[in-house]
Amino acid sequence: MEDANRTPVTVIGLGAMGRALAGAFLDNGHPTTVWNRSIGKAEELAVRGATVANTVDEAIAASPVVVICVLDYAVVHEILGPLSGSIAGRTLVNLTNGTPKQAREAAEWAAGYGADYLDGGIMAVPVMIGRPEAVILYSGSAGAFGVHERALGALGTATYLNADAGHASLYDLALLAAMYGMFGGVYQAAAMVGSEKVPAAEFAPMVVSWLNAMTAALPAVAEAMDAGDGADDDDSNLQMQAVSFANILSASREQGISTALLEPMQALLDRAVAAQRGGAGTPSLIAMLRTDPVPA
Amino acid sequence: MEDANRTPVTVIGLGAMGRALAGAFLDNGHPTTVWNRSIGKAEELAVRGATVANTVDEAIAASPVVVICVLDYAVVHEILGPLSGSIAGRTLVNLTNGTPKQAREAAEWAAGYGADYLDGGIMAVPVMIGRPEAVILYSGSAGAFGVHERALGALGTATYLNADAGHASLYDLALLAAMYGMFGGVYQAAAMVGSEKVPAAEFAPMVVSWLNAMTAALPAVAEAMDAGDGADDDDSNLQMQAVSFANILSASREQGISTALLEPMQALLDRAVAAQRGGAGTPSLIAMLRTDPVPA
Repeated sequence: MEDANRTPVTVIGLGAMGRALAGAFLDNGHPTTVWNRSIGKAEELAVRGATVANTVDEAIAASPVVVICVLDYAVVHEILGPLSGSIAGRTLVNLTNGTPKQAREAAEWAAGYGADYLDGGIMAVPVMIGRPEAVILYSGSAGAFGVHERALGALGTATYLNADAGHASLYDLALLAAMYGMFGGVYQAAAMVGSEKVPAAEFAPMVVSWLNAMTAALPAVAEAMDAGDGADDDDSNLQMQAVSFANILSASREQGISTALLEPMQALLDRAVAAQRGGAGTPSLIAMLRTDPVPA
Repeated sequence: MEDANRTPVTVIGLGAMGRALAGAFLDNGHPTTVWNRSIGKAEELAVRGATVANTVDEAIAASPVVVICVLDYAVVHEILGPLSGSIAGRTLVNLTNGTPKQAREAAEWAAGYGADYLDGGIMAVPVMIGRPEAVILYSGSAGAFGVHERALGALGTATYLNADAGHASLYDLALLAAMYGMFGGVYQAAAMVGSEKVPAAEFAPMVVSWLNAMTAALPAVAEAMDAGDGADDDDSNLQMQAVSFANILSASREQGISTALLEPMQALLDRAVAAQRGGAGTPSLIAMLRTDPVPA
């Protein structure tokens, strides 16, 4: 029953995401133990075969792999803080949303108790969990990832980054920042055309092919970012962009659409021009986002 | 010499974009007349076979299709305002950046002089002009577009939207808004991982596949936008997003990266939650961008 493909797993935290994770383990035949502060959320999982632990210690004792996915790191520490040491020798997989700093602190805490630690960033909504398109980024113990990669594969595509426990969160939040930027732009766009009764669904295919053309350019843009700040761009420099960007704001105003989402980018472009950096290309904007010296 | 495929064309305005437009017409064998306020910029085009007009009136008299691409609409009116009427019966193709309102005013002005009017939005940088990936959106006179579609095809992929002269600009600026949102998100993301010395080029492939997965979801998101505001989303509602979005800001601060580009979205999410709309999905944010009643 306990073969290598069917590692027993424990899931702590049964919000929408935790329930999806436990369900995916059950679907893949893993003996699955669950625990949640309020017991009601475990009922459906119990019907599907999960063991419902009475205490956190009992939940942790049940499996070599302990997945925790709760609201935030404060809750992680509330739940795991009072443990009597049963976590030693187990792999703690923390899929709770948090910052790189919080992840590194949790990794240190786990090491202090003799546990292996993996931090994970879930690049998916609960309904996607268990499917290959649900990418989960992991960082931390390479050994633990190697041993449990197959079990973690039950949740989606498991991608290991590196040994720095903070990097899964860093990459996760950076990808989310990119996504929210894109969605914010799309909301602005949809509101603009919507002001003239153009349905978003009619406009969407044009947006998709346009944005896909732009994402195709990102590897080259990234090379330019890495090359440094100052390179002049005569085709589309910051000065030209500040002018055409101002049209997006004017048009939004004329159409009765808020410019709130646009203003920080306009400010950044205007600041570049005022600092005599208007001849440079857009990749140079990235340096302007640094508020402190880059950590060594 | 003057067959249907080789309509004579005039290009007014020889900035980087105007020169690219004239060059593409020349490359396609169109008899091409050019005019610019400062004559120096025409030299290279003259060597390639362009006729350099001495006056705007002469430039307009030379061709049935007159393309104008200058800094802004103020310059359009400065150049075309004092005309003695030679524009009558010609097609004015205005590729100058501006707002829908400015385009509609220019269309009215042209109609008053007996000219057909097409407004265009160039979704490309100058180096792309003449290639199929350079999409140019047109709106205005359907008849003029039908007659000159082939000539305009020399510049890139010519896409006709509808008879409203303002719509090429509206769609153009909306697509640019989406693009700048996406790029702003990518700059934030690159700055975040860059704070830990991860090269943007190393991170870029992950960003591309992540954003492409997200753009694939846009048609469904657009349907939800069109369906209205209130639909609850238990998988990823605004309340959940406000919490996880706050992590992006916290992580940016911890990494010494500005949160300026992120703040308006956080404000929008917080406002939705404060207005008891936290249970709704993200498409409901679009309604919050409307500052005025939608024009009828």
